[in-house]
Amino acid sequence: MKHQTAAILVIGNEILSGRTREANAHLAAKQLFKRGCKLAEIAIVPDIEARIVTTLNRLRADFDAVITSGGIGPTHDDITMDSIAFAFGKELIEHRYIVQEMAEHYGEDGLNDGRRRMARVPEGASLIRCQKTIAPGVQIGNVYVLAGVPDIFASQLEAILGDFGGRSFQRREIEVDMAESSFAASLDRIQVQFPDVEIGSYPSHCGNRPHGKICLNSKNGDALLKAVQAVQTMLAKLHAES
Amino acid sequence: MKHQTAAILVIGNEILSGRTREANAHLAAKQLFKRGCKLAEIAIVPDIEARIVTTLNRLRADFDAVITSGGIGPTHDDITMDSIAFAFGKELIEHRYIVQEMAEHYGEDGLNDGRRRMARVPEGASLIRCQKTIAPGVQIGNVYVLAGVPDIFASQLEAILGDFGGRSFQRREIEVDMAESSFAASLDRIQVQFPDVEIGSYPSHCGNRPHGKICLNSKNGDALLKAVQAVQTMLAKLHAES
Repeated sequence: MKHQTAAILVIGNEILSGRTREANAHLAAKQLFKRGCKLAEIAIVPDIEARIVTTLNRLRADFDAVITSGGIGPTHDDITMDSIAFAFGKELIEHRYIVQEMAEHYGEDGLNDGRRRMARVPEGASLIRCQKTIAPGVQIGNVYVLAGVPDIFASQLEAILGDFGGRSFQRREIEVDMAESSFAASLDRIQVQFPDVEIGSYPSHCGNRPHGKICLNSKNGDALLKAVQAVQTMLAKLHAES
Repeated sequence: MKHQTAAILVIGNEILSGRTREANAHLAAKQLFKRGCKLAEIAIVPDIEARIVTTLNRLRADFDAVITSGGIGPTHDDITMDSIAFAFGKELIEHRYIVQEMAEHYGEDGLNDGRRRMARVPEGASLIRCQKTIAPGVQIGNVYVLAGVPDIFASQLEAILGDFGGRSFQRREIEVDMAESSFAASLDRIQVQFPDVEIGSYPSHCGNRPHGKICLNSKNGDALLKAVQAVQTMLAKLHAES
């Protein structure tokens, strides 16, 4: 059974201090949408074990799966593996196969404490491998632990996406050149008429020349088509009246 | 007393479906950091009242203040004001002054249901005004409710930033051209030595030519300077040895 709902937990002080603009959650959001998996929450917390553990335990209880990003490197602020192990009540163990691979790649001299730190995984976890790095991500229960470095995250995400999804969402967008307030009531009635379709209205700026988009998402292609037609008819009618 | 810690609650299906890359939380993160307010969490939830209420109540209990972004427009999916009122056990009332201003600006004919919807505020809330729009944000208790449209959010944020902060954080970054694993243990010792300084290591890519940055944040300028010197000395020593 594939995961129908997911949450993303981003771990990193660099996002919260404004140093770095978060990118991994946005990539995952796009990929999950494409696969028909509903992304239900994104949470961004600092490199503090208690905060990671509490947030992870809440998210993994509430949703089918959790994808984490960040904190699995070699430095002291990389505490995600420790936190995940704690959350699951597991020991963190050095993975022999990874250590051996590191020794082969870097030589025995290159196998320092930092690299060994990246070979530690929660007991019972399975490895998520990718071409970009020897240091693995892991899956334990319904939690997927990925790297924060964007190209490694992207590569590891690719490796796990097969576990997520179902019937695909489809999206249609309709350009609008009138103020949201002028069609809000009509759009509300269309939303009530099509409960299977998620309808959103997104003004791109406010001012004298209103402009925006109405966005419709659904897993039901038939309902989506009818809702799009209803919106188009509604807009044409309002235009004719104005 | 200014808010020393804050959380940001972003409300919007468009972020979770990957349609839109979140921008407001990143702007707020940068501004709060500049003012010395610790951003403790960013949460992104869908346009679902129960989810907004639960998340808001958790965040406003845990941190000095919460800034929300999104869901205060005129359409059916704009349910943030309703959710905030519910979370505080308040009625949502039409604000006479805002309605009057809208009537003056748009004319009595232009004062449709959508616009009136944007004049609804939780009872007892104070208004957050900005130059970009008549529709206000609000402050109620320790919660600041701002728009999702980026230029309106930015303008409203400007209006409330005076409530946040304290002694400023300072940040220093040091370029590194060696693998994280080679300095991880030494950096850990420096972190232990300088508990007032938040030290992070961020590789920009992995591969044959390691490159990255060590980032140091602190409110204590003296400790920051000493920690920076310790990192530079440590790196020079490792270079000399390699």
